[in-house]
Amino acid sequence: MTRLHVLNAPGALTFDEDALRRRLAEAGGLDVTISHDLARLADEIGEAEILYTNTKTDLGTLRARAPALKWVQIISAGVETLLPTLPADLILTNASGVHAEKGGEFVLASVLLLNYRIPAFQERQRRHEWVQDFVRPLRGKRAVVLGSGAIGGEAIRLLAGRGMEVIAVNRSGRAAEGAASTVTIEELDEVLARASVLVSALPATGGTEGLIDARRLALLPAGTGVVSVGRAAVFDHDALCAALHSGHLGGAVLDVFPVEPIPADDPTWGVPGLVVTPHCSVDDNKGYLDRCTDIFLQNLAARRAGEPMPTRVDPAAGY
Amino acid sequence: MTRLHVLNAPGALTFDEDALRRRLAEAGGLDVTISHDLARLADEIGEAEILYTNTKTDLGTLRARAPALKWVQIISAGVETLLPTLPADLILTNASGVHAEKGGEFVLASVLLLNYRIPAFQERQRRHEWVQDFVRPLRGKRAVVLGSGAIGGEAIRLLAGRGMEVIAVNRSGRAAEGAASTVTIEELDEVLARASVLVSALPATGGTEGLIDARRLALLPAGTGVVSVGRAAVFDHDALCAALHSGHLGGAVLDVFPVEPIPADDPTWGVPGLVVTPHCSVDDNKGYLDRCTDIFLQNLAARRAGEPMPTRVDPAAGY
Repeated sequence: MTRLHVLNAPGALTFDEDALRRRLAEAGGLDVTISHDLARLADEIGEAEILYTNTKTDLGTLRARAPALKWVQIISAGVETLLPTLPADLILTNASGVHAEKGGEFVLASVLLLNYRIPAFQERQRRHEWVQDFVRPLRGKRAVVLGSGAIGGEAIRLLAGRGMEVIAVNRSGRAAEGAASTVTIEELDEVLARASVLVSALPATGGTEGLIDARRLALLPAGTGVVSVGRAAVFDHDALCAALHSGHLGGAVLDVFPVEPIPADDPTWGVPGLVVTPHCSVDDNKGYLDRCTDIFLQNLAARRAGEPMPTRVDPAAGY
Repeated sequence: MTRLHVLNAPGALTFDEDALRRRLAEAGGLDVTISHDLARLADEIGEAEILYTNTKTDLGTLRARAPALKWVQIISAGVETLLPTLPADLILTNASGVHAEKGGEFVLASVLLLNYRIPAFQERQRRHEWVQDFVRPLRGKRAVVLGSGAIGGEAIRLLAGRGMEVIAVNRSGRAAEGAASTVTIEELDEVLARASVLVSALPATGGTEGLIDARRLALLPAGTGVVSVGRAAVFDHDALCAALHSGHLGGAVLDVFPVEPIPADDPTWGVPGLVVTPHCSVDDNKGYLDRCTDIFLQNLAARRAGEPMPTRVDPAAGY
């Protein structure tokens, strides 16, 4: 029997423990304990080899007090807060892919919203103005998509499915499925100048922070739309807001922000052409943890079979 | 040579006459005249056998003064204003299908907008409120789509492509491509009770006017979204607005209205949860008339070959 400890601390996403125990029992070979207090985790984890946790914690400190621990499964995709203290010999698996279907579809929704100029119609509606504006469907327009991981990859597939010419941008330049072309970040400047819409689904790593700054925003053609569902730090937020204020950008749908929740007195709320969705493009409660458990069980099966675990984090890559 | 007269009256959509003449010349066998004044059309049409017109007119009156006329091609899909005066032996072809790609995509955009509760987020944005709301993607949700013609058919295909269970409703009950099931209007009541979203892409005919009245709106589950891109008369507009005011409906995207433009003092502008798009879901200027000419030339080729003309209107059916 392999010892598995589950931390189910109070919060937005908590496991239905009966349902979880049933699913873990089906996998077989697991000796499962569950605790609920993050502050007491190091005491309660005991000799567990695997931790499946709904809450992030300093894994270096935890490991020092739980030497049997070999593998931690988390329920989110982002790992940048965990990496600085991650012991080199501790396996970390994330929930990458759990966001793909919703995240990709949310990007499609946002790109359509911007293409059909819905925010402009709503502004006219508030003024009781009937002003028509005929736009062409997405077919033949160009999307530059930053990141071709789980969410970016699904977004690329869906936008290409609407006939868009998608230019994917990733670290390796390896061809993203559905993209008309894939370039590396080094080639970013020249593709920005050809975008109808810019989508970011990048994680926050040293290489992507501040990537889209004032200079690069200025490279976008006038009227370009921006959609951000990755990490907010990819953008210079002030420069992005300035490009909306000036009218250089045609509009933006942002789901992620430098400070969340956005403070009530933050000028972001009132930026013209900006649609704020409060970090809702990915996480969702119903079924979310079930899908995380699917991922955990896939990782478990791979580990038992001596195969690569599908969502193992590469600390050097940062995701 | 067959005599073809083109009416290119001033308005929102006018032919580029040089480009049109080139395309008609390629078809061969046509003796083309062009005029620009609807009021003088009966004088200027001469002995033409075919009229290709960018403006609708009373075809009974016109025919009485242009006895050689056998076929009229219009540039819109809706024909309800023409049918009452259409001589029985005059062939009428419309531009059905020209709207399909954009209309279908606009429906997808609207259904996604409602699914992801964008209007509610925007309302909170105006109040500077960070309130999250996690919703599931479209997969597994149920769309009831009224009409499976060019636009409805494309909408069905796109919504099914997102994993929705689509119930198509049409006159014949003949299976619509992509729909999980297709029912006739007689079975409408029972499917309304199972809708996550109700889409209308129906033409205005005697059989569809007032179809969705207060009683049928009440059959929809609380929180259902409504999208209308067909003819406004399908809905009891006051009942629809009342169902939004009461909160029974989750929201609506309406592109068509009983009176267009909506008067500035019309209460429709301020209905909560309603997104008004000013009849922009279908028509678009760029390339639109080129696509109409594609359709005209397809009809011409079919007529010459003695085959059914693809967009010939059936006056008895009303479309």
